Amino acid sequence: MMAPSSSLFERLKAAASDEWSAYTDHAFVRGLGDGSLPQACFRHYLAQDYLFLIHFARAYALAVYKSRNLADMRSAGKTMSALLDMEMGLHVRLCAGWGLSEADLEATPEASATMAYTRYVLEEGMRGDLLDLHVALVPCVIGYWEIGKALAAWPGALEEINPYHEWIGEYSTEAYREVAEEASARLDRLAGGNLSESRFADLVRIFRQATKLEVDFWQMGLDLAD
Amino acid sequence: MMAPSSSLFERLKAAASDEWSAYTDHAFVRGLGDGSLPQACFRHYLAQDYLFLIHFARAYALAVYKSRNLADMRSAGKTMSALLDMEMGLHVRLCAGWGLSEADLEATPEASATMAYTRYVLEEGMRGDLLDLHVALVPCVIGYWEIGKALAAWPGALEEINPYHEWIGEYSTEAYREVAEEASARLDRLAGGNLSESRFADLVRIFRQATKLEVDFWQMGLDLAD
Amino acid sequence: MMAPSSSLFERLKAAASDEWSAYTDHAFVRGLGDGSLPQACFRHYLAQDYLFLIHFARAYALAVYKSRNLADMRSAGKTMSALLDMEMGLHVRLCAGWGLSEADLEATPEASATMAYTRYVLEEGMRGDLLDLHVALVPCVIGYWEIGKALAAWPGALEEINPYHEWIGEYSTEAYREVAEEASARLDRLAGGNLSESRFADLVRIFRQATKLEVDFWQMGLDLAD
Amino acid sequence: MMAPSSSLFERLKAAASDEWSAYTDHAFVRGLGDGSLPQACFRHYLAQDYLFLIHFARAYALAVYKSRNLADMRSAGKTMSALLDMEMGLHVRLCAGWGLSEADLEATPEASATMAYTRYVLEEGMRGDLLDLHVALVPCVIGYWEIGKALAAWPGALEEINPYHEWIGEYSTEAYREVAEEASARLDRLAGGNLSESRFADLVRIFRQATKLEVDFWQMGLDLAD
Repeated sequence: MMAPSSSLFERLKAAASDEWSAYTDHAFVRGLGDGSLPQACFRHYLAQDYLFLIHFARAYALAVYKSRNLADMRSAGKTMSALLDMEMGLHVRLCAGWGLSEADLEATPEASATMAYTRYVLEEGMRGDLLDLHVALVPCVIGYWEIGKALAAWPGALEEINPYHEWIGEYSTEAYREVAEEASARLDRLAGGNLSESRFADLVRIFRQATKLEVDFWQMGLDLAD
Repeated sequence: MMAPSSSLFERLKAAASDEWSAYTDHAFVRGLGDGSLPQACFRHYLAQDYLFLIHFARAYALAVYKSRNLADMRSAGKTMSALLDMEMGLHVRLCAGWGLSEADLEATPEASATMAYTRYVLEEGMRGDLLDLHVALVPCVIGYWEIGKALAAWPGALEEINPYHEWIGEYSTEAYREVAEEASARLDRLAGGNLSESRFADLVRIFRQATKLEVDFWQMGLDLAD
Repeated sequence: MMAPSSSLFERLKAAASDEWSAYTDHAFVRGLGDGSLPQACFRHYLAQDYLFLIHFARAYALAVYKSRNLADMRSAGKTMSALLDMEMGLHVRLCAGWGLSEADLEATPEASATMAYTRYVLEEGMRGDLLDLHVALVPCVIGYWEIGKALAAWPGALEEINPYHEWIGEYSTEAYREVAEEASARLDRLAGGNLSESRFADLVRIFRQATKLEVDFWQMGLDLAD
Repeated sequence: MMAPSSSLFERLKAAASDEWSAYTDHAFVRGLGDGSLPQACFRHYLAQDYLFLIHFARAYALAVYKSRNLADMRSAGKTMSALLDMEMGLHVRLCAGWGLSEADLEATPEASATMAYTRYVLEEGMRGDLLDLHVALVPCVIGYWEIGKALAAWPGALEEINPYHEWIGEYSTEAYREVAEEASARLDRLAGGNLSESRFADLVRIFRQATKLEVDFWQMGLDLAD
């Protein structure tokens, strides 16, 4: 049951609970947790995730543009810079460990699932306002935290025995928990109190769609789909 | 006092009543009503209004792009087409009557007040969502109806004796009343029920700013400012 | 060999000839031409094409917004209105003939291929300028003409014996040829003379991507993919 | 005479030389150089420049969004972060020295010249592509360097005797020269070779307009205009 004081994020998750489970409990995710995921699937996912991150950085730049005060600008700008200056570097390093050079990554053709997801977020964010944009972004940001936290508790998930321990480690740190919490707090701040029913329904639609596109993204990895 | 069932437009107008009066009761407006406005001021205004209409049509195109359902797309598209295919033609004819050819109009440099107003509306509309955009557009749409209706009641305002009777006539027709009523109904439809306080405050800020820019637009006409 | 006076469209097509063939000579297309396409595939395609048209109309609205002169605004606005006021009606009627009501159409979940294609066009068009946007739109506009014209010459393609004769008829009319020719002329007008090599390379990239997404769209129909 | 190898910036400046002189040799500028500018004018300018910087940071965020490769994203992102994290802080400190608190700055109503200039840049940049956006930004970036460098050579301009020595110092440093040079190099990189005549004409129009809006911005300071 949801307390009346539930965060907007919790309300959105409750309204799209089927999609949320399909995303956070996907076969790809379970394969990461027990290490059984075929390595070709992970490499395929990693290369597409690199392309994804580029557009994700563009989406945070859009959030700076869409902001109506300096605090929102700086908060989105910090994430944008972290993506461009740090996370993409980490990603390149992680990929190198899997035999994917930066040149490989840049030459990778964008899969249909990557294109559908990234352009949906950017386009929905451009069409709507800053809250719409952040709602489109949040399934990725908080979902990865929920997945990382859950998998970290699996036996051996953070040890060498699991080939994906680094990835799981990255999304279960205290630092990443703070990123997720800030994303949730930001939604409440932007909503600024009670939403009208029709506005909430619009946000649910966006949240559900972005979550479905996360499911498709895992599936693309599993199917080695292009 | 404002009834709880007030339309969103009425609530916005009440929140920006000083700016609204400065706009609808501007010296330029009174000069139209009693025919005392210097004709050079009217010609200056007409040429700038032509440039204004071009960007206004772009803003309605933006509204089509920003819409989330076919009904909103068609409603904004109808206004966009009316502006491009009809009103600009009427404007050109009106201007011709005042000695301004279409070539004159297109060669007119954009005044600072025209640029500030049009780009503010487009940019605020791009930053926000469809409701933000329509709130930025509404002071023009409904304000001209309130002005037209009020001036039409002035003695001689619709007769040859007043050199501005055509202009007053255009904005006091039954057809234009319907345009204004539809614009108000659209705001209520898009708001979709109760707005959060912070959202209402944001909309007031936009409405007030657009109304101020209407005041500056009249003043630009009066001052022959570039 | 390409004459130096080739249109921009012909130069783009030549640069993406593999993708263009894969699109205009797709198994779905051949199945339309000889009537062998399973009817479930056509119905699946029709329903997705309805959703596609909505976003296509949004893209033409974006083109009005992005225009820098009245002629470009009016040209894009005419297409936008034709889509909203006429083509969608035709489409609804065509769908009705295939047992799909308007309510069915609106309740259809958007397939991944539809989302990838439509959002790519809108987003690339927002990122770039008016020429970029029209280059993203043109594979659909002119490709359907090339397909319609080619299929119309197949034996029986325009007769009752072929269940898809109406569709083929719609895209092989003289009126539709003019739409395609105007789309090509518009590209040349917007390019305004010689393009720099890097600009041409960017346009090829957009054209090729949009053409690939057309291939995926046919494939989605054939696979009944969601 | 302009060498064929002129940078795009030099070609734009040559095409808008009257506006460029009106901007870089404005009475406000000369008043900074010889210290004769009334201090109320400088304070008025400073407060509006604070509001200007907020939208300028949004424009660089838009440039990140509009970029087509990581290098362009990172370059614009660096400027955006420098504006948000550093320059606005410097500005606040400079303002404090002139008796303007951060609260004063945020409560300052936006002058018409500020609104016209900032929204023009953002809107023109959204309408066009990344090159259009950077052309709209460049008169400010490089113009301030030309002004800073020129004024620094005036007698006493960098000494306590001139109340504006800090401002002049800020825009004549080696570091700021590099910012200006990078802005010019960026234009050439984005143009990517020869532009068509019609494209160059469009860029001249944007450059000239942004330069005129710089003139209006100085004039607004001088006139204490709101």
